[in-house]
Amino acid sequence: MRMIDRRRFLHFGAASGVFGLTTSQAEQTAVAASQPQASSEQSVKLFGDGLGLTPDDSVKLLTRLAEEGEGVQADSYSNGGVVEELEQAFAAALGKERAVFMPTGTLANHLAVRILAGGPSRAIVQAESHLYNDTGDTVQTLSNIQLVPLAPGRATFTVDEVRALLDRTASGRVATPVSAISIESPVRRKSGEIFDETEMDKITTFARQNGIHTHLDGARLFLQTGFGERSAEDYARPFDTVYVSLYKYFNAPSGAILAGPSALLDKMFHARRMFGGGLAHVWPFAAIALHYFRGFPERYARAVHVSNEWKQLVSKHDAFSIKPIPAGTNLFWLQVKHPDLDRFRNRLAHQNVHLPAPLVDGSGFRLGINESWGRITSSDLAGMFVQAVEA
Amino acid sequence: MRMIDRRRFLHFGAASGVFGLTTSQAEQTAVAASQPQASSEQSVKLFGDGLGLTPDDSVKLLTRLAEEGEGVQADSYSNGGVVEELEQAFAAALGKERAVFMPTGTLANHLAVRILAGGPSRAIVQAESHLYNDTGDTVQTLSNIQLVPLAPGRATFTVDEVRALLDRTASGRVATPVSAISIESPVRRKSGEIFDETEMDKITTFARQNGIHTHLDGARLFLQTGFGERSAEDYARPFDTVYVSLYKYFNAPSGAILAGPSALLDKMFHARRMFGGGLAHVWPFAAIALHYFRGFPERYARAVHVSNEWKQLVSKHDAFSIKPIPAGTNLFWLQVKHPDLDRFRNRLAHQNVHLPAPLVDGSGFRLGINESWGRITSSDLAGMFVQAVEA
Repeated sequence: MRMIDRRRFLHFGAASGVFGLTTSQAEQTAVAASQPQASSEQSVKLFGDGLGLTPDDSVKLLTRLAEEGEGVQADSYSNGGVVEELEQAFAAALGKERAVFMPTGTLANHLAVRILAGGPSRAIVQAESHLYNDTGDTVQTLSNIQLVPLAPGRATFTVDEVRALLDRTASGRVATPVSAISIESPVRRKSGEIFDETEMDKITTFARQNGIHTHLDGARLFLQTGFGERSAEDYARPFDTVYVSLYKYFNAPSGAILAGPSALLDKMFHARRMFGGGLAHVWPFAAIALHYFRGFPERYARAVHVSNEWKQLVSKHDAFSIKPIPAGTNLFWLQVKHPDLDRFRNRLAHQNVHLPAPLVDGSGFRLGINESWGRITSSDLAGMFVQAVEA
Repeated sequence: MRMIDRRRFLHFGAASGVFGLTTSQAEQTAVAASQPQASSEQSVKLFGDGLGLTPDDSVKLLTRLAEEGEGVQADSYSNGGVVEELEQAFAAALGKERAVFMPTGTLANHLAVRILAGGPSRAIVQAESHLYNDTGDTVQTLSNIQLVPLAPGRATFTVDEVRALLDRTASGRVATPVSAISIESPVRRKSGEIFDETEMDKITTFARQNGIHTHLDGARLFLQTGFGERSAEDYARPFDTVYVSLYKYFNAPSGAILAGPSALLDKMFHARRMFGGGLAHVWPFAAIALHYFRGFPERYARAVHVSNEWKQLVSKHDAFSIKPIPAGTNLFWLQVKHPDLDRFRNRLAHQNVHLPAPLVDGSGFRLGINESWGRITSSDLAGMFVQAVEA
């Protein structure tokens, strides 16, 4: 790592416009106008996908939403009111005919694969996917659809692997049709790695040609779009259905969206209820999610921009180095040379800049870019890091 | 119906202490101290099981709860925090080792029968039960447990009917064991009728002797206890598991409690999650339910007391007659002789006393006793009815 004069770095680092990298004042002001305000609205949280609202934050926000305009319109058994408003907003952003609220991502993924499969059969998933690892084999157990895991240890499986599997399946003594393919991207168990886009295109094309339905587990899709050229609609287009989480970066207490064709989803609330997911009222979830959904791409673009500049700035200091995740999205490692990472962390916390607990090996921190990064300038943030590491 | 001097009735009816029936001032004050306050805290709603909180009411209540004492403690995936507090309060009140939050009653009933049955088998239910009619055959479809409906058209089935069914089952060519019995009481599809207590005792005893597990769908159990001698714990005692709703009369936006032995329920959150019911956060539901759960029996006893007195008072006027539901609980019909029931209803609404839409046959209203009846005296309420019908 290149050594520079620390004092000079600190001086410039804390000033606006250092290295000509920081966001312009005009751009900041424009984005600030679309910024939702939470009670901890000034704090910068350098980890996690979302703002990590406390009950207090959420209740204050709900109070504001209830007082604004026509207030919050109640749903009835997860239909209508602000829930419908949310569903329509997501359907539009994802370029799908219909979107349906789901209480959890587990249910959204399950009901998508269940309806796409159309009955007992096989569905292809990543071995590293949430659906395969973290749902208690729900699809296999409750819907009699066997999940076939591909590409253990990797984010991406290839169209050749899909072809090979279909060949094996066709040679079985009993017909075991592959009815659906579910792709998760970014892949949380691979630290937010993106499913290779070229393979994704080949697979969805191949699936269409072979009458296999496709589902995108896009829990963090709107984070992924902050790191590439494709929009959420672009990603969703080749898939029949897509799921997006509401509680991670849209900060609802819970909830998910499942979007796709009207023919599949207009009556989906029946299955939702059969599974025990037809909650009497979910307006608190929908109201908060809708609030943060509005203007999210712009705010998140600013957050990513700040993080990119900040990475360049702190990397110039020999105490810091950035370890990116190849094909990653919002997660990365920050290595910090400091004898007491807790003390370092506390110094930043006093400035309302929050780090996660240090890594157990003492090398630094795993950080995550969420929209709170957009609440500060890259130079201010870099300056605080240098001050904290040198103090 | 006995005719009385209307003017005299009105005079007395509107005064406190008429007929020596009304609740004493001291009793009112004592109960008022334990009264939760909602924003529409003065309104009296003469229908439905609960207060029918609007989003506005709920948000105001959550704000107060967040500001009180230690505030609202967040849960993590429906475990811990205020959710655990709620679970412990219900476990104690129901005399069970363990209680688990569920997002819906549909899931609570399903997971109870699923774990009690222990695998594919038959479970006995009422033909009029919610589980048999209103859950899309979820237990049959997802858990491969066949529900055998008894006593169509009636609230109660008898131990003899259970015996007869077991005999038929035993004579089948393939063994089809009856593994569980689920009893709903009160029965919503029978307008809140109570399952006959003598038969209930015989059935639970018979089931225990025959190794059949039992579940009580007590969605409205704490309403039922307002109309009889048995406590919620008394009702729950002979059953392995019991479900209680949180969104009906405990006024949460959604939610349910499933209580029973630790051995069955300590790990139930895994099944809850597998079904897609492991919501990331449900503290808004738990906080509101816990608020209304505290002191509910006392407040509801007062509401029932007011309703009983009021029924006697208005029955003395020839415009009104009460049509009770045999073995009923909180629901009954009020017949009103008036040419314009909407006008009658609006007059009461101006006094913040709310009736449901009139019955389509024009005979009157179906009323429901919820805790808001405790916000008024029986004589004041009766006086308002007489004024409204005579104006």
